[in-house]
Amino acid sequence: MDAAVETSVKRVAACLEEKGLHYEFVPIDLSTGQQKKEPFVSLNPFGQVPALEDGDLKLFESRAITQYIANAYADKGTPLVPINDPNKMALVAVWTEVEAQRFDAVGSKLSFEIVVKPILGMTTDGGVVDQHQEKLAQILDVYESRLSQSKYLGGDEFSLADLHHIPIVNNLLGTKIKALFDARPKVSAWSVDILGRPAWQKVLQSMKF
Amino acid sequence: MDAAVETSVKRVAACLEEKGLHYEFVPIDLSTGQQKKEPFVSLNPFGQVPALEDGDLKLFESRAITQYIANAYADKGTPLVPINDPNKMALVAVWTEVEAQRFDAVGSKLSFEIVVKPILGMTTDGGVVDQHQEKLAQILDVYESRLSQSKYLGGDEFSLADLHHIPIVNNLLGTKIKALFDARPKVSAWSVDILGRPAWQKVLQSMKF
Repeated sequence: MDAAVETSVKRVAACLEEKGLHYEFVPIDLSTGQQKKEPFVSLNPFGQVPALEDGDLKLFESRAITQYIANAYADKGTPLVPINDPNKMALVAVWTEVEAQRFDAVGSKLSFEIVVKPILGMTTDGGVVDQHQEKLAQILDVYESRLSQSKYLGGDEFSLADLHHIPIVNNLLGTKIKALFDARPKVSAWSVDILGRPAWQKVLQSMKF
Repeated sequence: MDAAVETSVKRVAACLEEKGLHYEFVPIDLSTGQQKKEPFVSLNPFGQVPALEDGDLKLFESRAITQYIANAYADKGTPLVPINDPNKMALVAVWTEVEAQRFDAVGSKLSFEIVVKPILGMTTDGGVVDQHQEKLAQILDVYESRLSQSKYLGGDEFSLADLHHIPIVNNLLGTKIKALFDARPKVSAWSVDILGRPAWQKVLQSMKF
């Protein structure tokens, strides 16, 4: 499976790398449906990657895993959530929800149509692309305004709210959708900044499977 | 606007009621597009209800608001997150993500087609209902299994993971979709339990606008 497909797995890997944690990456063969069988479905009953085991704790859902890592390993590597300031934490939570509820719905669809479908030998639906491109433009207008007030989405520090965007932004910047980012200076600078992070570069290097 | 439409607003109201907090409810007239204009867009740049002001803090996204309330008012009313146990907290986060990423996508669509569209004088799309009904059945199968292991989704205590489901479950149980819940004993008992909570009953009483 091409790594561009596995955006959720890379979201978790980026978080682990930001924290500088040691981890073992166990590939799951999606082509044979290994994710729908034991032992994997005991980790995630929905039969989708990724899942995380940390001691006795078994977790799934990429954004729940990153939240756990950010909190449980707060003192390691990059601080990803402002744990000691409830108001700052609340703003990180707002923009984390914006990613999950708004950006991802549109960005994942565009990534699937333009990046993933060709890899899988499927045909891109131009109508779906046009429709979602328009929606993404509206979302990025709000981001442009937000990033004029603070360096990152959740505030002046890089946080989970930014990190969660990285895999999809990375996919989209290799396509014509890049024009939507280029047209917005703050969004463009932000995307270059978050994709340039050493932790993400390590993920791109190590996950060329 | 019929209250059945405003599931996100009711999600936040349910959380405030669980905490027994005093709050002022400021209705926004969606029929005149008040949510897309100042002063509301200064609270939520995406121009959608709800938004919350608490002192100088301005928040939007219902699930970020509930998370803030649960943490900032941890010592009031019902404990909604196990703040002192990182592993229990991680499991609540997993099932909170399951609601946001899986249940809501399907449940909101069904609620929109079957409950909201008739209120707005629009026609329900039977094909969309059938397709999403099948998806919901698969999700509820996983819930049935989960609720056989613990009383609530996030663990043995009621938490935000359950609370976030309430408004959509409430809408769906008034429709033919109830059959999907009735067919699964644990899911059925759970839905009766969470809808019967006094805090939710207060929301239903007070939000008959």
